[in-house]
Amino acid sequence: MSQFTGNHILSVDQFDRAAIEKVFAVATTMQPYARRQKRTTVLDGAILGNLFFEPSTRTRVSFGTAFNLLGGEVRETTGMSSSALAKGESLYDTARVLSGYSDIIAMRHPAAGSVAEFAQGSRVPVINGGDGANEHPTQALLDLFTIERELQYEGKGIDGLHIAMIGDLRYGRTVHSLSRLLCLYKNIHFTLVSPPELAMPPAVIEAIENAGHRLTISTRLEGTLDADICYQTRIQEERFESQEEANRYRGKFRLNQSVYTKHFQSKTVIMHPLPRDSRAEANELDNDLNQNPNLAIFRQTDNGVLVRMALFALTLGVDHLLTSYERGVIWHSNKSSE
Amino acid sequence: MSQFTGNHILSVDQFDRAAIEKVFAVATTMQPYARRQKRTTVLDGAILGNLFFEPSTRTRVSFGTAFNLLGGEVRETTGMSSSALAKGESLYDTARVLSGYSDIIAMRHPAAGSVAEFAQGSRVPVINGGDGANEHPTQALLDLFTIERELQYEGKGIDGLHIAMIGDLRYGRTVHSLSRLLCLYKNIHFTLVSPPELAMPPAVIEAIENAGHRLTISTRLEGTLDADICYQTRIQEERFESQEEANRYRGKFRLNQSVYTKHFQSKTVIMHPLPRDSRAEANELDNDLNQNPNLAIFRQTDNGVLVRMALFALTLGVDHLLTSYERGVIWHSNKSSE
Amino acid sequence: MSQFTGNHILSVDQFDRAAIEKVFAVATTMQPYARRQKRTTVLDGAILGNLFFEPSTRTRVSFGTAFNLLGGEVRETTGMSSSALAKGESLYDTARVLSGYSDIIAMRHPAAGSVAEFAQGSRVPVINGGDGANEHPTQALLDLFTIERELQYEGKGIDGLHIAMIGDLRYGRTVHSLSRLLCLYKNIHFTLVSPPELAMPPAVIEAIENAGHRLTISTRLEGTLDADICYQTRIQEERFESQEEANRYRGKFRLNQSVYTKHFQSKTVIMHPLPRDSRAEANELDNDLNQNPNLAIFRQTDNGVLVRMALFALTLGVDHLLTSYERGVIWHSNKSSE
Repeated sequence: MSQFTGNHILSVDQFDRAAIEKVFAVATTMQPYARRQKRTTVLDGAILGNLFFEPSTRTRVSFGTAFNLLGGEVRETTGMSSSALAKGESLYDTARVLSGYSDIIAMRHPAAGSVAEFAQGSRVPVINGGDGANEHPTQALLDLFTIERELQYEGKGIDGLHIAMIGDLRYGRTVHSLSRLLCLYKNIHFTLVSPPELAMPPAVIEAIENAGHRLTISTRLEGTLDADICYQTRIQEERFESQEEANRYRGKFRLNQSVYTKHFQSKTVIMHPLPRDSRAEANELDNDLNQNPNLAIFRQTDNGVLVRMALFALTLGVDHLLTSYERGVIWHSNKSSE
Repeated sequence: MSQFTGNHILSVDQFDRAAIEKVFAVATTMQPYARRQKRTTVLDGAILGNLFFEPSTRTRVSFGTAFNLLGGEVRETTGMSSSALAKGESLYDTARVLSGYSDIIAMRHPAAGSVAEFAQGSRVPVINGGDGANEHPTQALLDLFTIERELQYEGKGIDGLHIAMIGDLRYGRTVHSLSRLLCLYKNIHFTLVSPPELAMPPAVIEAIENAGHRLTISTRLEGTLDADICYQTRIQEERFESQEEANRYRGKFRLNQSVYTKHFQSKTVIMHPLPRDSRAEANELDNDLNQNPNLAIFRQTDNGVLVRMALFALTLGVDHLLTSYERGVIWHSNKSSE
Repeated sequence: MSQFTGNHILSVDQFDRAAIEKVFAVATTMQPYARRQKRTTVLDGAILGNLFFEPSTRTRVSFGTAFNLLGGEVRETTGMSSSALAKGESLYDTARVLSGYSDIIAMRHPAAGSVAEFAQGSRVPVINGGDGANEHPTQALLDLFTIERELQYEGKGIDGLHIAMIGDLRYGRTVHSLSRLLCLYKNIHFTLVSPPELAMPPAVIEAIENAGHRLTISTRLEGTLDADICYQTRIQEERFESQEEANRYRGKFRLNQSVYTKHFQSKTVIMHPLPRDSRAEANELDNDLNQNPNLAIFRQTDNGVLVRMALFALTLGVDHLLTSYERGVIWHSNKSSE
């Protein structure tokens, strides 16, 4: 992907290392705008069609906020029932029509491949906000962006990274996409920790191996002491035959402060795609980690706004025009950076 | 209707030919704004209350986009359950309250007459976005606007038009309203093609005849070779006693490229109120027509934005103030005109 | 509460008389902006997270409109199912994440205490838009603001007021909160009229008595002839054992023009928290009062916009900056003041 303007963002497979670095460079310039230290209206008059045919508070609001922060307006559609799709309209027709009402579209849909199909009918760029089990490229990009920023504090880059991925590596869409992006970098060490039933799919393993990366696979937490990143995921109950079996597995992959102290160095960054399940029976990431400065989960969601601002700016060709208008914000903002 | 400012738009019956021509003239001036060639903020600070008590993605977003394109903000309400109406509040009370929160209201509601009832309590202008089987005046206006624009390319006007209306003419609200508007013009030839059970209601027939127009009624596709416009509609399964009967009827009124070639001249414009049902058992307008340049269905929805912009501008009295602020749009827009 | 900027607004208990007077003074300055006589964009670039985990058209739109009128943008979330809360996410996590997407949050939630819990995780100010049976502070403030304005016309203040509260005083959250605010004033006379089963809770009675106010309790409408304010509420059917019992009680506490004429002086102001139930079996406030100039129920909802504008401006520290930008509105507004 050497050219963003006017193009769809459908899959992590579109990105090479140069494209990623471009996105991250622009995302970094977005920070003062997201923190309300500067103000831009570079997208004044532009309309985002925010189409969430499947519910998602976090991703939907993040896209909308990112667009507002660039000065654009948001027209939102949520849920499937309120859609003509329910009356037998094809994705092609929906796309042709709705792309007449906006300048760019962010879309989530429960069916794998649906966003790409929609994009074929769209007259404006479409950004995939998650199409079922298939892809969620902006999540992968914000995860990788977070890794880069967290390691920067220690003077490190992504090359040479040791990342431990823990939990449900089979169904967790985010770890698949993040792994694919990491394959574009050098000398990554993957430590994959999961129950055998929830192991990383062979296709991802193969991609990691083909990229020449180092791979350690385990069914219990070990060998993670020098990990830079601990990427925790949810283990969903319904993956197991019985509640008992689910509880047994989940117990083995829970992370709390005492497990962290035992298995990780004191500077290992803790990530999670969110939401984390805080109910006692799940609790894969204990609240006693909330005060741990290495818990990066809310920096991830903050970074999501920056990455989505960058993708909007690049796709609409205004990434270099941001400073055309700026002023001090006069209203109070006590927004802390996470 | 000689005066728009401050008035409700509830029914096509409010419009005489001069009023329609005014709307279309203003809608035409909206095109560079809708295509992002110019920018106006003439409605800066104004708020649209977009009240959709019945789901509708297309119409709802079209109203919202039109208002945004004029520089206004949109506060949206969707669904009935989230409304105080469900707690026994009268439409009068709802209108009195919600009209305190906006400068103009677009409203859809499943009950015929509800929007007019609401308007009596409203302190701001109300535009009917569809009240059940009753009225959907902005759809009729955008249909007629599309007809005018399509015929313009051939140097023709609406007077003298031959229009074929096909399918469910009994329950199809849009063909009723469009017919009423066409009664304001001269020498229209209506060819009405439908199963006998789904024939055009006597009241509309009478209006056409009283206007002195030419009328041909048929139960099969014939006599349409010199039609300027082919207006296709959906035949809904639930109108028939059995699935078999529905399929038999629908089969007779389907339009695809080969039927089109046989029954229409090569420049007949194809219209449809959308959504079209693309499922195999319905398929009243085949996807093989998508490349046919006379397929105007997506130009209809694009035109809907222009017509709604015009109605907002007229109702709020800013139709002559549009050029007060304009600038080149700096962000990329690859919006093609349909 | 001596300082608004950056603080949450969770309960009426936060307010002393000086704080209330500050809010009302700012709310009064908001009127020309709400009536579109002036325009401000003092919150240009700011984003309101409007989180309604429980449906509410009136309060939700009022918050959104108030923010738009100050020049800010609104990102909205409605309903519980579309939320990560349904996947076991804690209110703390939801707050940490969503507060990264906005500059201030207005929130409604069915569970008592939930908004305060959410506020603990939020990085931006949170305004309670109603947390179940617990609190709805902006409603209490707009009620009191309405009382002050209505009495102003007669040269009176809140001190020395005689208010009659009628109907369901037990479950009616609004009369509890309003009573608590009135306890900050002097020489109030409360006349509480309700069925015994729906009497004002002892805690509120005690607060009124501790404040040294005059208290008259009755099970029928009497002693209200010199009341300045008649605050009517709904009696909900489900509070009674049978439909018959409900009807009997509701009949006794209905207000219509003839009851009003008999029991109140001609200038008594009629208030109601809305929605009023206009179905025949309820009808606690008859439509024949709609032309009564003392019916203040729609002035209440209009005032709600002013009060919420004031709270936003104070919380974001721009209450003194409003006039920094103003212009005549060029578009038509026939907004009548109620």
